[in-house]
Amino acid sequence: MLIRAEKKQQTRQALLDAALQLTAAGQGLSTISLREVTRQVGIVPAAFYRHFQDMDELGLAIVEQVGSSFREAIRLVRRNEFEQQGAINASVHIFVEYVVAHKTLFLFLAREQYGGSALVRQAIGAMQQHFIDDLEADLAQSPKLTHLGAADYAVVANLIVRTVFSTLPELINPPEDAVLHGRSPEHQLEDKIRFILIGAKHWRGITASKDGTD
Amino acid sequence: MLIRAEKKQQTRQALLDAALQLTAAGQGLSTISLREVTRQVGIVPAAFYRHFQDMDELGLAIVEQVGSSFREAIRLVRRNEFEQQGAINASVHIFVEYVVAHKTLFLFLAREQYGGSALVRQAIGAMQQHFIDDLEADLAQSPKLTHLGAADYAVVANLIVRTVFSTLPELINPPEDAVLHGRSPEHQLEDKIRFILIGAKHWRGITASKDGTD
Repeated sequence: MLIRAEKKQQTRQALLDAALQLTAAGQGLSTISLREVTRQVGIVPAAFYRHFQDMDELGLAIVEQVGSSFREAIRLVRRNEFEQQGAINASVHIFVEYVVAHKTLFLFLAREQYGGSALVRQAIGAMQQHFIDDLEADLAQSPKLTHLGAADYAVVANLIVRTVFSTLPELINPPEDAVLHGRSPEHQLEDKIRFILIGAKHWRGITASKDGTD
Repeated sequence: MLIRAEKKQQTRQALLDAALQLTAAGQGLSTISLREVTRQVGIVPAAFYRHFQDMDELGLAIVEQVGSSFREAIRLVRRNEFEQQGAINASVHIFVEYVVAHKTLFLFLAREQYGGSALVRQAIGAMQQHFIDDLEADLAQSPKLTHLGAADYAVVANLIVRTVFSTLPELINPPEDAVLHGRSPEHQLEDKIRFILIGAKHWRGITASKDGTD
């Protein structure tokens, strides 16, 4: 009985991996058919329904895996920040290393956040908001940012998480012209986060000045 | 002869509009068939080839239209900056107003930047880079940012353009929980750009300090 449950679990994972491979190769999740996925795994199409109701449900299961993977990457970054007092380049390096080691998952995330399945899009949006909320709570505890208000923490958290999400494709597959002024995509992400945090340090509140820069 | 050329132009535009409507309704460009587009326009499928070789070529034609539309929005923003000395909220408001008035085009851009057609993705990437280069040149002329180096202008320009691109979906269709701490998506975009520019103002160079925030 245990063996049967294990086998079922293996086939389920094989279906998820097959869908991830197809999306990594360039297809959007919504263009992949149930038939393609089962063919890749080597089971009959009808067997799909023992694991998922439809391709949307399979997509949501992938989002869940991306979510735990992302949370693990954040845990590694936070452990480093605790030990090394938050050097941004070390944090970004740890994050990028983790992303590259799990590239199919993160590529799925980067693409399907605007993909054809509304359910998957919503699930990724909810996950992103969860990360923003967590980071917002973290920033509110930072001794360097005590001058900010609740709305400010929200802006900074949103800006950082969005910047990380939008950088995923080039972190995973750096294009040929990715090195800019001698800075790789990883270094460019460091620079961006540093810019945002410097902005946060010098921020005087949303309505402090007309354009905030003078 | 003139009338025939005009008619051809009209049908071409009708094909582009049909594809835009289908993508606005939630489909990815790569899941739309030539048949669906011609059916919507009311012409036989074979007539498609008088206008485009394939759906990729149609996608590239849409990217071109998005490009001119985007450049027009930027022209309006720059005219305002020239006249009102760059109040960020006025600039963002002009941009958002333009985007909302051309929502199907900008929604196409937001989604297909990570979509299933590699050709369209590349064209959008090239367009985005073009905007980054333009903004980089602008920032390099700003009297408030003379302390920055070439690499710094590139980071700030990249950060701003990416932030605008990643904000498009919620600017166009604000989700129900879009208002955060009393700030609408438009105001959140203002805040983000202000944060970035404050960061730029206080930036002391990429290698100035370990994490740049102390």
